[in-house]
Amino acid sequence: MKQFLGDDFLLNTKTAERLYHEYAAPMPVLDYHCHLPPQQIAADHRFENITEIWLNGDHYKWRAMRANGVNEEYIRGKKSDWEKFRHWAGTVPYTLRNPLYHWTHLELRRYFSIETILNRDSAKEIFEACNNKLQMPEYSVRNLLKSMHVELLCTTDDPTDSLEHHLLLKKEAFEVRVLPAFRPDNALRIEEPAFFNQYLEELEKAAGISVSSYKTYLDALKSRHAFFHASGCRLSDHGLEQLVSESFTDTEIRSVFDKARKGHKPGLAEADKFKTAVLLQLAEWDHEMGWVQQFHLGALRNNNSRLLSTLGANTGLDSIGDFRQGTGLSSFLNSLDKNDRLAKTILYNVNPSDNELMATMTGNFNDGSVAGKIQWGSAWWFMDQKVGMTRQLNALSNMGLLSRFIGMVTDSRSFLSYPRHEYFRRILCDLFGTEIENGELPNDIPWTGRLIGDICYNNAKHYFNWS
Amino acid sequence: MKQFLGDDFLLNTKTAERLYHEYAAPMPVLDYHCHLPPQQIAADHRFENITEIWLNGDHYKWRAMRANGVNEEYIRGKKSDWEKFRHWAGTVPYTLRNPLYHWTHLELRRYFSIETILNRDSAKEIFEACNNKLQMPEYSVRNLLKSMHVELLCTTDDPTDSLEHHLLLKKEAFEVRVLPAFRPDNALRIEEPAFFNQYLEELEKAAGISVSSYKTYLDALKSRHAFFHASGCRLSDHGLEQLVSESFTDTEIRSVFDKARKGHKPGLAEADKFKTAVLLQLAEWDHEMGWVQQFHLGALRNNNSRLLSTLGANTGLDSIGDFRQGTGLSSFLNSLDKNDRLAKTILYNVNPSDNELMATMTGNFNDGSVAGKIQWGSAWWFMDQKVGMTRQLNALSNMGLLSRFIGMVTDSRSFLSYPRHEYFRRILCDLFGTEIENGELPNDIPWTGRLIGDICYNNAKHYFNWS
Amino acid sequence: MKQFLGDDFLLNTKTAERLYHEYAAPMPVLDYHCHLPPQQIAADHRFENITEIWLNGDHYKWRAMRANGVNEEYIRGKKSDWEKFRHWAGTVPYTLRNPLYHWTHLELRRYFSIETILNRDSAKEIFEACNNKLQMPEYSVRNLLKSMHVELLCTTDDPTDSLEHHLLLKKEAFEVRVLPAFRPDNALRIEEPAFFNQYLEELEKAAGISVSSYKTYLDALKSRHAFFHASGCRLSDHGLEQLVSESFTDTEIRSVFDKARKGHKPGLAEADKFKTAVLLQLAEWDHEMGWVQQFHLGALRNNNSRLLSTLGANTGLDSIGDFRQGTGLSSFLNSLDKNDRLAKTILYNVNPSDNELMATMTGNFNDGSVAGKIQWGSAWWFMDQKVGMTRQLNALSNMGLLSRFIGMVTDSRSFLSYPRHEYFRRILCDLFGTEIENGELPNDIPWTGRLIGDICYNNAKHYFNWS
Repeated sequence: MKQFLGDDFLLNTKTAERLYHEYAAPMPVLDYHCHLPPQQIAADHRFENITEIWLNGDHYKWRAMRANGVNEEYIRGKKSDWEKFRHWAGTVPYTLRNPLYHWTHLELRRYFSIETILNRDSAKEIFEACNNKLQMPEYSVRNLLKSMHVELLCTTDDPTDSLEHHLLLKKEAFEVRVLPAFRPDNALRIEEPAFFNQYLEELEKAAGISVSSYKTYLDALKSRHAFFHASGCRLSDHGLEQLVSESFTDTEIRSVFDKARKGHKPGLAEADKFKTAVLLQLAEWDHEMGWVQQFHLGALRNNNSRLLSTLGANTGLDSIGDFRQGTGLSSFLNSLDKNDRLAKTILYNVNPSDNELMATMTGNFNDGSVAGKIQWGSAWWFMDQKVGMTRQLNALSNMGLLSRFIGMVTDSRSFLSYPRHEYFRRILCDLFGTEIENGELPNDIPWTGRLIGDICYNNAKHYFNWS
Repeated sequence: MKQFLGDDFLLNTKTAERLYHEYAAPMPVLDYHCHLPPQQIAADHRFENITEIWLNGDHYKWRAMRANGVNEEYIRGKKSDWEKFRHWAGTVPYTLRNPLYHWTHLELRRYFSIETILNRDSAKEIFEACNNKLQMPEYSVRNLLKSMHVELLCTTDDPTDSLEHHLLLKKEAFEVRVLPAFRPDNALRIEEPAFFNQYLEELEKAAGISVSSYKTYLDALKSRHAFFHASGCRLSDHGLEQLVSESFTDTEIRSVFDKARKGHKPGLAEADKFKTAVLLQLAEWDHEMGWVQQFHLGALRNNNSRLLSTLGANTGLDSIGDFRQGTGLSSFLNSLDKNDRLAKTILYNVNPSDNELMATMTGNFNDGSVAGKIQWGSAWWFMDQKVGMTRQLNALSNMGLLSRFIGMVTDSRSFLSYPRHEYFRRILCDLFGTEIENGELPNDIPWTGRLIGDICYNNAKHYFNWS
Repeated sequence: MKQFLGDDFLLNTKTAERLYHEYAAPMPVLDYHCHLPPQQIAADHRFENITEIWLNGDHYKWRAMRANGVNEEYIRGKKSDWEKFRHWAGTVPYTLRNPLYHWTHLELRRYFSIETILNRDSAKEIFEACNNKLQMPEYSVRNLLKSMHVELLCTTDDPTDSLEHHLLLKKEAFEVRVLPAFRPDNALRIEEPAFFNQYLEELEKAAGISVSSYKTYLDALKSRHAFFHASGCRLSDHGLEQLVSESFTDTEIRSVFDKARKGHKPGLAEADKFKTAVLLQLAEWDHEMGWVQQFHLGALRNNNSRLLSTLGANTGLDSIGDFRQGTGLSSFLNSLDKNDRLAKTILYNVNPSDNELMATMTGNFNDGSVAGKIQWGSAWWFMDQKVGMTRQLNALSNMGLLSRFIGMVTDSRSFLSYPRHEYFRRILCDLFGTEIENGELPNDIPWTGRLIGDICYNNAKHYFNWS
């Protein structure tokens, strides 16, 4: 009987233990994709209580509570922070076998040194213990990041964002580098003309450019792209159901743009042409500036319009879709590659049924210019758990080069999510350890350890053009 | 070397053994979805021989025999029961690693106390031993159910069914509750006007309502829904390739209905609008009456028209399809939820590539009103085996709350299928046991045992509004 | 700590060891689907060096090298064979956990008795050792095949092929039977009229028939089909994204054909009708002549047009697609079956998300005429690795009859790929061994061993109508 969450948690062989403790654990963290709020880092925010830091931004927990029959009042409603925490604590024992169970107790251990199991009985004691600690300077946002050996993180930012917090942090030379990432999803929502036109107002303001035509729309985006670059950004990101790749003419695109600008909803085919055109243009800029582009593909979002209308987006109303990914993605990447405009690219899929498609799609566009040019990103969102990570690591191993993988990201909105890197590293080391001990890999610890260090840290370090 | 099918079959740790024997095995069975014939229960049918009870209704066995090169004469043809049994016995050794191999020998053990392996050599002896036992009163249908600790079962019934057998059983107060479930698939087959109009004749008779319009069609269905409710039904069921959710107007639906009523085949889009309208209406009634609705999604049926024409449906000619499930299902559930008309719902998918979609779709519509409101049903049909169950249990664990799962159903046409509940429970306990022993879960047997008891019995007990 | 690649590689129980060494290993090899060049067998080719035999035809290695950042000059470019080998050797340590790592070292051991790990340091020594051996008569193509106990192999040939090498080998009575397989993919590429018409010229020459109409096109194909049959062919093959099954009239097909013959590109629907018609016709001939038909479904090919234009097809630019497979495949097979024209059929899918669909589709058309009439082929291409094979074997076991499986093929362009049969056999025996030892299967070694021998050799031996 192994101890729950002990030192050798998830490590099932002596070799795995050695690989983890000697090679993986000591590596710093490069969290090149997350959703942390830069203003809280800039302000070195201190949290009032554990509910604020742990529950207020975490839609994983909200979904679990809803599934457990907890009333919305205790989730996103007006109940007190203690009441919300108490209901979360009461839900935790029902999350056995869900990653939340591991994350919860890992986070209590790693940040708060609390080894008690969270449940209704221990709720009060843990609430108070955490809240007391959160008053201490060590629990400021910046200190939390440092305590987890985070060396660099990239947030996710709209092109209209002023990046004022990033710039402040840069100026202050905060030792954890906090870089922006360019996520222009909103700039592409042409199928909702009211939203689109409102957004363009903000874009006009941010860019100082009047957006009267498709050309000036691109000028404004380009200007923001350049501003992000000057602010240290080397990474774009797109959240899409699927990558479309429709043929189009400039005249068509101008006409769709003008139509939407006048408040008319474009047809589906028109919107797809527009998105193809804009995404290709953005991709060319990414290539030109030496950025990495990310595509997060396949989520089916905002399914529950009733809760959406009261809670807004990103509140646990999203799920996994079954959009066709192959031909559009291939055609899109090929359009860029054939003109030598294909930037380094990371593809993330949320539906694991697309795993093998993604693992092999990357191989079509590796051109030998650099190791691992096209990356298949780490198991994302719902797949960010032991089974999901294992499937991703195995498919990547079998269909590509695991050794060149740039590894884990938290993709999280919470400052307490950094043990997910530990979680990933333990699983990674366990896979190697098992296969070494059963004769499927040579017993070459230094080489295997080196590859593990690369996957945990070095590969990402060298992949991005951070200055 | 562990003994084949021994006491600790499928239990690979001491903890799993304990969880199974102490917590799972003692629970009664609630088989809330099956295809048992109610008339045989009402008549307390006795089977003449093992072929009648074991082979005559089991398309799993027929497919295996066809794959093994057995001539149809020995499967659904005119050969004697002994000849049919002999050919099944000869096929069994070729089913190694198929669930049929486990089911076959579990059923021989649990019902007939026969531990001999079935093959060509043992066929005669086993045929006779089973047949002798089947003459005994303990082998009547009702006694078979009682011997397996079945507390309640739901059959699957057409809206036109008289439910006479259910009513008789209710009147007799048979200690195993036998409830109907409302499965109106036939009422939706508007794309086959000849069939549809013939069906509506039966519906008219059953409801005592003349179906001259879409309105009276709904009246007739509503009347049957009410009759089922009065007869104890609290559960509907739909077998669909995918849930469609097309926008429609009442005028359109009335017009499609009238067209089909005149014998004209509606177009695909027309049929989809019609199905959307009717399914939404049925779903509202389910919500109104406190029923649970089930959707069985993704089967590609009746593939072999040659055998279909001689053998009819449900004879082993069905397989797994790759229909798109995401957007239609989301839109359908949302249409109901946004008007607060979404009943408790169980989604079953037959293609495991949709597992994660289904597991996460349920999470979009849990509204905190009750724990586990939207359920992802147990591994279905072809997936009802160790690998399939394990995948379902793992995806459910990782993306939802396994603890709130309402568990296993036989979905079977055979009175000998109840060991499938045992099979499920062993697999379930093995998953928990392994993770407790390797430190992935706390060594808290009482709590884990309680959740296991919930999944095996209590959750279903509380989920349905059985009076 | 088990030794890397030792005698009991991949065998994790004593029972698995016994099953492999006693039952699987001794069986000869029937490689009924590969891409070996018949001219090299006819010429009993001797390779100049290890680069020629190992790297020049292997797109798996090329993809790995590109992913590892190796410049194309060292892959398909003009660098020396030593330089190319050196870069491959430098890539090998980065392929840990990829099947290439196992294949590479198994091939060095089985063919060259080299147990050294290949890397940059050992590259020179291994290059020279291999090259020295390749000068020896034992390393001629024919002797390589004999040394691996290959009893028969089927190549993959265009209908226009003269089959001169096959005929020579037949005449010489080379002890390894080398048979052609009929792969008419090119004859179906009507959507590319320029290519199509050029191809028809070759077909005219090969058949000695002027192709002026759809009828004479079929005559020419039929004539080649008959010629292949006379040359020993009993197997056809098709590489398709998906099986289409559109309704059509003869007039429509003639008209599409005439249109393409005049150089006009047919529409998508027209091309699909044409392909349906031709594939059904070819399938009927296969049935008539007692052939087996193979369908390789789901690859998304030629994704990278830049490399394609310089390197041509089959150079590592293909990946896994997500084409819809179910309804077209069902309808196609049913069209044949209902007229009793369905030949024995092997379905291969490259996307493992289609595994269960394929495993169950086969079961719809097994008609009891012969055991395992419709086969689900072994894990293909990207799935030809331990995880992929295990998934295929498990899905086949659970949804069909593993016992009737006709087993492994190399599907390779390399004479050094035969250890893949050994790899497959080890995985197969391990699955049975584990389940026997943990009580999931009876401890019946003779019967299990017999089934293993059947899967490795006997089933294929009896499946094909080789004279």
